[in-house]
This record gives sequence, C-alpha cells and structure tokens, in this order.
Amino acid sequence: MKKWKRSARLVDMTQQLMSHPHRLIPLSTFAERYQAAKSSISEDLAIVHDVFREEGEGMLETVSGAAGGIRFIPRISDERARKLSERLCGELQNPARILPGGYLYLSDLLGDTALVRDIGCIFATVFHDRRVDAVVTVETKGIPLAYATAGQLGVPVAIVRRDSRITEGSVVTINTVSGSSKRLGSLSLSRRSLQEGARTLIIDDFMKAGGTVRGMFDLLEEFRAEVVGVGVMAESRAEERLVDDYISLATVDEVDVRERRIRVKMGTLFHGRD
Amino acid sequence: MKKWKRSARLVDMTQQLMSHPHRLIPLSTFAERYQAAKSSISEDLAIVHDVFREEGEGMLETVSGAAGGIRFIPRISDERARKLSERLCGELQNPARILPGGYLYLSDLLGDTALVRDIGCIFATVFHDRRVDAVVTVETKGIPLAYATAGQLGVPVAIVRRDSRITEGSVVTINTVSGSSKRLGSLSLSRRSLQEGARTLIIDDFMKAGGTVRGMFDLLEEFRAEVVGVGVMAESRAEERLVDDYISLATVDEVDVRERRIRVKMGTLFHGRD
Repeated sequence: MKKWKRSARLVDMTQQLMSHPHRLIPLSTFAERYQAAKSSISEDLAIVHDVFREEGEGMLETVSGAAGGIRFIPRISDERARKLSERLCGELQNPARILPGGYLYLSDLLGDTALVRDIGCIFATVFHDRRVDAVVTVETKGIPLAYATAGQLGVPVAIVRRDSRITEGSVVTINTVSGSSKRLGSLSLSRRSLQEGARTLIIDDFMKAGGTVRGMFDLLEEFRAEVVGVGVMAESRAEERLVDDYISLATVDEVDVRERRIRVKMGTLFHGRD
Repeated sequence: MKKWKRSARLVDMTQQLMSHPHRLIPLSTFAERYQAAKSSISEDLAIVHDVFREEGEGMLETVSGAAGGIRFIPRISDERARKLSERLCGELQNPARILPGGYLYLSDLLGDTALVRDIGCIFATVFHDRRVDAVVTVETKGIPLAYATAGQLGVPVAIVRRDSRITEGSVVTINTVSGSSKRLGSLSLSRRSLQEGARTLIIDDFMKAGGTVRGMFDLLEEFRAEVVGVGVMAESRAEERLVDDYISLATVDEVDVRERRIRVKMGTLFHGRD
C-alpha cells in the first residue's frame, strides 16, 4: 500500500474534489485512499477549504452523520464575476459583431471554452442554493453554457429541440410565437430527459423579448417541472418582456447598424450593486 | 502581502493548474503570487507533477526559456479509460434505448455532465499530441462532447450547423448525402469560426456510415483546415464506411428491434489492445 505524504495528499485531494463538483465524498473514502486517520484527513480538508474560500474559488461543505462526507461547491468571487462580465461587455461592443438585421455574432465567444466555463461558474454561483435538479437549454448556442453551469452544479442537462427528432424517442411538443419577430415555431423535449417534478434552471445565450424562454416555461409545465431560475449571457432591450425574473451578465442597450455602434452595459446580475 | 505556507500553496497551485488546462503559466507568476523563491516553486511543482502522474490524472509540462513556464496537460489513465468505456458499453446495451427504426436513445448519457467530461478527457488524452487548434462538431448531440474535449485541450470549438442561421454571419455551406439513409442535407460553418489552415479535431456522438463526418471533411477543406483526428463516442456497423481513420469508445454491433437486444463491444480505441 502506497504511503502518502501530507503534501501529496493535499494535491490529490484538491484534484479529487475539483473533478467532482457537488459530489459527496465520504471521509472514509479519503481515509482509506490515503491510509490516514480521519483526524489527519480533516486537517487536510480544513487547509483546502481555507485556500478555496480565501481565493474565492469555492468552498467545501461538510455533511455530518453516517451518510455524511465532504463536497466541493465551486464558487466565483464577486470581483472575478464582475471582471469577467466587464470583459464580456467589452467584447460585445465590438462593431465587427453587427450582422444584417442588427443581429450580433456571438459564436466566437461561445466557442471560447475558458470563457464558457467561467460564465458557467458565475451561473453556478448565483443559483447554487436553488436546489437545482437539472439545467435546461434550447439548441444550439445555449448548450455550451448549459453544460458549463450544470457541470459546476453537478446536475444533468436536458436540451430542448426546435424540431422533434427520431433519436429523442417520445417527446412533448408545444407551439411558440417569438416575442420579437412574431414568428411561429415549436419546442420539443424528450419525455425521458427530465424527471417529473424536477427543479430546473433555464440557461441560454441571448434573450430578446424572451419568447423562447417563455415557451420553455410552458413546455416544462407539461413535465410538472418547476423553474427555479433563468440565466442568460446577454439580453437586448425589448418593448415587451415576456420573462421578468432572470439574471443576465450583459445588457445590449442599442445596436446602431448604420453607425456601426453597439452600446452594452452590465447585466441584471449587477443592478443595484454599483 | 499574504504569506503562503507550502501546504496552502500546493492546494492553490493544483487549483490554478487544473482550472486552465494547457495554458502556459510562467514560473514568475507563481513566484509573485506566493512571494516565494523560484526554487521553492519548482519543488512544489515537482510534488504536483508526481501526484498527477502517479494517479494518471495528467502531467505538468515544463517549457524552458524566457517565454517558458509550466502547463497542465490533463490525462486519463488507460485503466480508467477502459473502465469508463466498459461502463458506456454496458449502458448502451440497455434494450430500453431501442427506438423505432433501430435508433438508440442517447440523450440521457449525453446529458450526464460527469460522463461527458470523462469522455472528453479520453479524447483529449488520445489526441493530445496532434497539436489541435480547434475542435469541430456538428449540432446537436455532439456539442457537449466537443466542449468537454476542447476544454481539456485548451482550444476553441466550432459548431457546424445543419441549416445556415442569420446569427452566424457569412457561412460556407456544402450539400451532403447521408451514407446510411441516402438523405440529402447541408452543413454550414461560419467563416469567422475557424482560422484558415487550422488543425482540427472532429468530435461527434455517433457514427453510422460516416456521411456527416465525411461531409465535415469536405466542409473543412473549404477552410484549408486539416483534420488531425476523428473521435466518436459510439459507432454502429455499416455496410460501407465513408471514414477510415477514427477512434470510437464503443461499437454497436447489432440492434435487434424484434428481440429487443443490443450487442455492443469496446470501440476501436481498444482494438488490438485486449
């Protein structure tokens, strides 16, 4: 049996905890792995906890009792969340993003795996106490953010499709009307992809009037699922907003196609906190 | 200025390295952060490296010279990759997955964020020395695996769309013929989403005859991009295979709809290694 030094134990423990966010690891698992007394393990965990907390990178939660153990809750500090959102706002203001019709090109940001992970960590921090069972998003561009968030929350993802696919098996479909362009559409979710009564967190990349998110509320109602939060990377101003309670990291105030100017401010997450 | 003990330094260093796979961190960054001599930092890094390597969780790569530093390369051990693939094969054999037409329901597996991360880690390990610039996938179900892989490789993702969307800006589109069902389709990729000449890794969830992957080769040729690898979670037997060189974790040999039986064996990654 391998003999672990404390220094090696600390590295390995940090690695184990970070690799399994929100998973409860019994103290005895660590004690056996490192062939060490539980008291030593507890001292190690206290060190890990202190570093995570001081650096704003997360915390360790202790669950006592026979089914107890320790779990890593990833967090992001207010300061880092603000810096990331400022960077996001700066990126969004780049006039090269302007597409015909005043749409914004976002695929480069959503393709940036480090940025996506950080945004997921912000959402996971904001919604960590909502007892989320599953993250729900709609194809296509919201998917990376949904996985980044769900991974940090340690829960699965269910993807709503805009068309129903044979590979989804039996699905529930509802018809929708886009709030901004009044286009008709449909949203489908596989029956098997969500437990009835699940507490769901809706994550998407961009919200205009909120017709899609509103449609997801209606669709989730068919699963008797509860929506415990809505997080979008960015939103744009809309005359009529179909969703009231949501968190955004950035608000696109104006896209002036002729002047090629985009005005962006910090999202609702930071409202009333400046 | 905060005074760091070695134990705290080890925890924080592990956290920093794991949070930024493949990112080169100069030794001086650590020396400043911890207010410690570079020799102490080097000793710490040696401890981290040894633990990662012994546990098969990755390695630290040292780049010397003025622009040098240290980077974390995530790895998964052969043993864990095999165990994960065995688990995947077991899951795939569940007859409840059989859908009309012999399709398999996979969305539960692809919604499992921990499994997706692990599969991404296998692909990142297999393809770590191919100098990948970007991971390319096709919507929808391949997306989570592509992000999990790209995140571990520290590169961006480009998503090929089956229809061209206004939010993608200028796109390159090609027409495709499905190899298995001979259906017509199209694949589009935003011009901006990939640098010309990029070394790309194609990741997808399931391959039958390989028509979609073949189409992606053709599409990527329009970007003068090179395909340096193809990884799919699972493949099924096809009479005519349009792609030769690929890695799969599981091979679906037979789906017997009437008998409700699925036969699955380990994928090409393990061929010749049993």
